[in-house]
Amino acid sequence: MYSEGFGILMYKITVNDRWMPMKDAIRSIELLQHSRHDWMNRLQVIKGNLELANIDRAKEVIEEIIIEVRQEAQLSSLGVPRLSEWLLTYNWGRSAPLTVKYELLSEGKIPGQLDEPIFAWLKRIVDKIEKSVPVEVNNELYLIFHVDQEQSVLQLTLEYEGGSLACSPKELLADADGPAVKWAEASKNSFAVKTSFKWCAVKQD
Amino acid sequence: MYSEGFGILMYKITVNDRWMPMKDAIRSIELLQHSRHDWMNRLQVIKGNLELANIDRAKEVIEEIIIEVRQEAQLSSLGVPRLSEWLLTYNWGRSAPLTVKYELLSEGKIPGQLDEPIFAWLKRIVDKIEKSVPVEVNNELYLIFHVDQEQSVLQLTLEYEGGSLACSPKELLADADGPAVKWAEASKNSFAVKTSFKWCAVKQD
Repeated sequence: MYSEGFGILMYKITVNDRWMPMKDAIRSIELLQHSRHDWMNRLQVIKGNLELANIDRAKEVIEEIIIEVRQEAQLSSLGVPRLSEWLLTYNWGRSAPLTVKYELLSEGKIPGQLDEPIFAWLKRIVDKIEKSVPVEVNNELYLIFHVDQEQSVLQLTLEYEGGSLACSPKELLADADGPAVKWAEASKNSFAVKTSFKWCAVKQD
Repeated sequence: MYSEGFGILMYKITVNDRWMPMKDAIRSIELLQHSRHDWMNRLQVIKGNLELANIDRAKEVIEEIIIEVRQEAQLSSLGVPRLSEWLLTYNWGRSAPLTVKYELLSEGKIPGQLDEPIFAWLKRIVDKIEKSVPVEVNNELYLIFHVDQEQSVLQLTLEYEGGSLACSPKELLADADGPAVKWAEASKNSFAVKTSFKWCAVKQD
């Protein structure tokens, strides 16, 4: 225990003080909190199965988590940090009743210069979908990425499943600055649409 | 598959281009990568035990992880984001052969205004210890936090165990701007020292 005698630093604190702690540190702590929360949920599923002696199911759950984590790692190293960060954190702390999931069908990198245009376009579309989905229903948007490195193209599929949308899918996807899209399905409860982003490398001397 | 016919956006990319993607997004992605890496290690331990049919051990490991995670969450909500963020991420991507661990003996909050002075002091000390530890040995610094909310004081204990330090512990802890310290043990392979940070709340009208 501490004796009264040994020196201490005294700091005068004013309640209601407006001093703000470092924004970046707070942002990092929040990110790690969300990640921790997701992982605790995963851990609880394993724990629950072990408590019920469902050992095989617990092992399966672990394998499923490993696949998810590989996808997260793949998304993180796609070369498009703004897009990746947005997708990795999309479902955290959202009040909008839309869940965004993703799948990467290939390894590969997208040039960093495409980060901003792809991110900006996708965010505009997702913002519109968010505002169009009904509340109190499970609405899911599934993004499928396929990077074809040889052809220098990202093929991107958007699939929606959920409650009836307030606007038609074609209205939602209408975007003058965006890429052309190709419809596979378009109803108010479910749609599937494909698009692509192509680039070409120009070698500098 | 995509037909040649349907529209694509063409982006001209210059190799060797110096365009930098958003710093913050990169920082977030890196943080999540480190966290993912830690969690994958934890998951591997559970998985390994299940594969060897050590079900009880797997359950124990889960309980140990839950305790660790509670400590992380407690550190995150201590009210001192710079200090918390630094400690939460200290062991990630370090080349210095020092591991920093921590324990929080109590719930409670430290006023945000103490974030900077405590963080700055602790960082100065840890930087010095880092430079003083031998390489190729397991060196561990253990920080024990006890927030006494009623007494408005943080009691902080630093315990070192590891290889022989290049400087004496008393030299390492000598800091004109820091708080007074009280030695419990001080050898070159092991030391324990206590200090405290006190504050007083002044109500503003």
